Amino acid sequence: MALTFTVQHRDGAARAGVLTLPHGRVETPVFMPVGTQATVKGLTPDMVRRAGVQIILGNTYHLALRPGDTLVAELGGLHRFMAWDRPILTDSGGFQVFSLATQVKITDRGATFRSHIDGSPLELTPERAVEIQQNLGSDIAMVLDQCPPGAAPDDVIRTAVRRSILWAERCKTHHTRADQSQFAIVQGGTNLALREECARELVAMDFPGYALGGFSVGEGPEAMHAALPACAVLLPDAKPRYLMGVGRPEDLLAGVAAGIDMFDCVMPTRNGRNALAFTDDGPIRLRNAKHRRDTAPVESGCPCDCCTTFSRAYLHHLFAADEMLGPTLLSLHNVSYYLRLMASAREAIRGGRFEAFRAGRLARWEGRSID
Amino acid sequence: MALTFTVQHRDGAARAGVLTLPHGRVETPVFMPVGTQATVKGLTPDMVRRAGVQIILGNTYHLALRPGDTLVAELGGLHRFMAWDRPILTDSGGFQVFSLATQVKITDRGATFRSHIDGSPLELTPERAVEIQQNLGSDIAMVLDQCPPGAAPDDVIRTAVRRSILWAERCKTHHTRADQSQFAIVQGGTNLALREECARELVAMDFPGYALGGFSVGEGPEAMHAALPACAVLLPDAKPRYLMGVGRPEDLLAGVAAGIDMFDCVMPTRNGRNALAFTDDGPIRLRNAKHRRDTAPVESGCPCDCCTTFSRAYLHHLFAADEMLGPTLLSLHNVSYYLRLMASAREAIRGGRFEAFRAGRLARWEGRSID
Repeated sequence: MALTFTVQHRDGAARAGVLTLPHGRVETPVFMPVGTQATVKGLTPDMVRRAGVQIILGNTYHLALRPGDTLVAELGGLHRFMAWDRPILTDSGGFQVFSLATQVKITDRGATFRSHIDGSPLELTPERAVEIQQNLGSDIAMVLDQCPPGAAPDDVIRTAVRRSILWAERCKTHHTRADQSQFAIVQGGTNLALREECARELVAMDFPGYALGGFSVGEGPEAMHAALPACAVLLPDAKPRYLMGVGRPEDLLAGVAAGIDMFDCVMPTRNGRNALAFTDDGPIRLRNAKHRRDTAPVESGCPCDCCTTFSRAYLHHLFAADEMLGPTLLSLHNVSYYLRLMASAREAIRGGRFEAFRAGRLARWEGRSID
Repeated sequence: MALTFTVQHRDGAARAGVLTLPHGRVETPVFMPVGTQATVKGLTPDMVRRAGVQIILGNTYHLALRPGDTLVAELGGLHRFMAWDRPILTDSGGFQVFSLATQVKITDRGATFRSHIDGSPLELTPERAVEIQQNLGSDIAMVLDQCPPGAAPDDVIRTAVRRSILWAERCKTHHTRADQSQFAIVQGGTNLALREECARELVAMDFPGYALGGFSVGEGPEAMHAALPACAVLLPDAKPRYLMGVGRPEDLLAGVAAGIDMFDCVMPTRNGRNALAFTDDGPIRLRNAKHRRDTAPVESGCPCDCCTTFSRAYLHHLFAADEMLGPTLLSLHNVSYYLRLMASAREAIRGGRFEAFRAGRLARWEGRSID
């Protein structure tokens, strides 16, 4: 079995469970840091492990372009290449083609586009997305989908839904790797009828896990939070549910409340590189002059190596001096923060107090503006 | 006592000893990685420790400008600020003023210049150089000296020598911190008569340690290697001898052969950031396409975390993809390499086989061109 999933505790729609994958055990709900180019930016695999990370996400589009999926396969697969021995989920590459590549043309056959690196003409079909991910050897692969922008009109979303269903079926047919599970992706924007149609078709195909795509693509957090509960229940209760590309800490808790089990987002690392730290009292900007002589850690009580070792004053200095160590240390803190948040959410679900936990966190985050 | 130094083994002019400083014990000959802006670029203090580093160098000019030496003092000193609990040596700031600042004017009083960061007018006198370093709280402080270029005519070098002697005396008079030792710096270029005069004056002042400045400033490695033995013996035999800003692995061994105990250089970190790795078989460039599918580590048998974990193919990918982890991992390897080289040199001196060791290393390095 390439995947087993057990829901161990329920608290309203929220669930805490265990996902077992070829490279290890993952407690859910789980946050997956993004390792786009075979590295979680600025962090060694050892730092990522010490931050409590159980599973990371790799990007199919980037890795297929550079260093190339056949080269990664030749070198022993993505785990060995990047020296990460815990589970990896890879996306299908579709989202990146639509957002990064140029001259993108989409037909039922797939997408043709030009590489954002060197302009070379390329094609991504459902079959090619499967092959790339099989070459990478991720524990979980995603089907190729078409993800329209949040503001897209219904006919565009309807076409994307139809095509995503068609492509999911072709991905399932083409998939052969026994030590890899394939998740389907439900599209439909904030149109619940289209989400229902898409989910019904995909659930009938019996994938081992299901994702919600097309959120956090411009529709606004309120619209997403409102849509999540109704969308999450469209996915099989006994299988892992993954909300793609989301999000801020408050978005993660909204997802957990709706019954989502898995999340990924570039925010902890991207914001860390830009001197923004997540804390229980809301985000803080380390470039702000108020931190110049502050001997407190980024977050008091945080057990990460950044907070137990360095002051805000030192972090402020590193960013002012444009030193690499600033982005590294703040990425480390932010990834640790996201992982701790998910661990606390699991604990709250097990204790039957998730809504109180969530309300408490929201109140504390909202009590402060960004300083 | 802020410093004790014992020579434990001799092998020709080479010596192996122990330097005891307020923050710890240092086995010599020793290489000090450079932590210009209160960080060894790209590395956490834990990585620096794991590379075997016993003492690092901090830059007075940079730290006085940003974050400012009084702020560092207020925050508990440089050790605490950057979370480095082993010894630190700080330079005097003179070399950086001459190489980085603009509108530099030097008189016997000191140097006036404009900051390379914001153009603000500043002054560095011998007294100010002492105060900055006392605020930083380094284990070893350097006197302010004037370092002329390697190609400078004799009258320029003569003026620099006279001024360096004058400034050393004022630094000694102004120095009060009991838990910090002050080293004097012998200038004189490759003019042995001037070196002799400078050393005689400075030795008479009885500093706890002595440095050779004004090497590796454009005079060429052959001229430096030729001058080192005669210059090293001008420094007291019972005190630590430090060759400033040097250099390549072969330059370190030339210095050790001449009786030098301490070295610093930006090469391991700067070259690491530029994808060049030092190895026993000579330097290799990880950007070179020949490493694209090479599963070997950067250096076989190297015990550093880079070499025990990652392949050359992965490092090649990180540099091709412009990922921060490439500079971090290669800086780690290079610092480890320099530290291992010095450890092997100490072992060879203790075994009475330093010249054979040095000849063997030179033959192996020279046996290969850069690939």
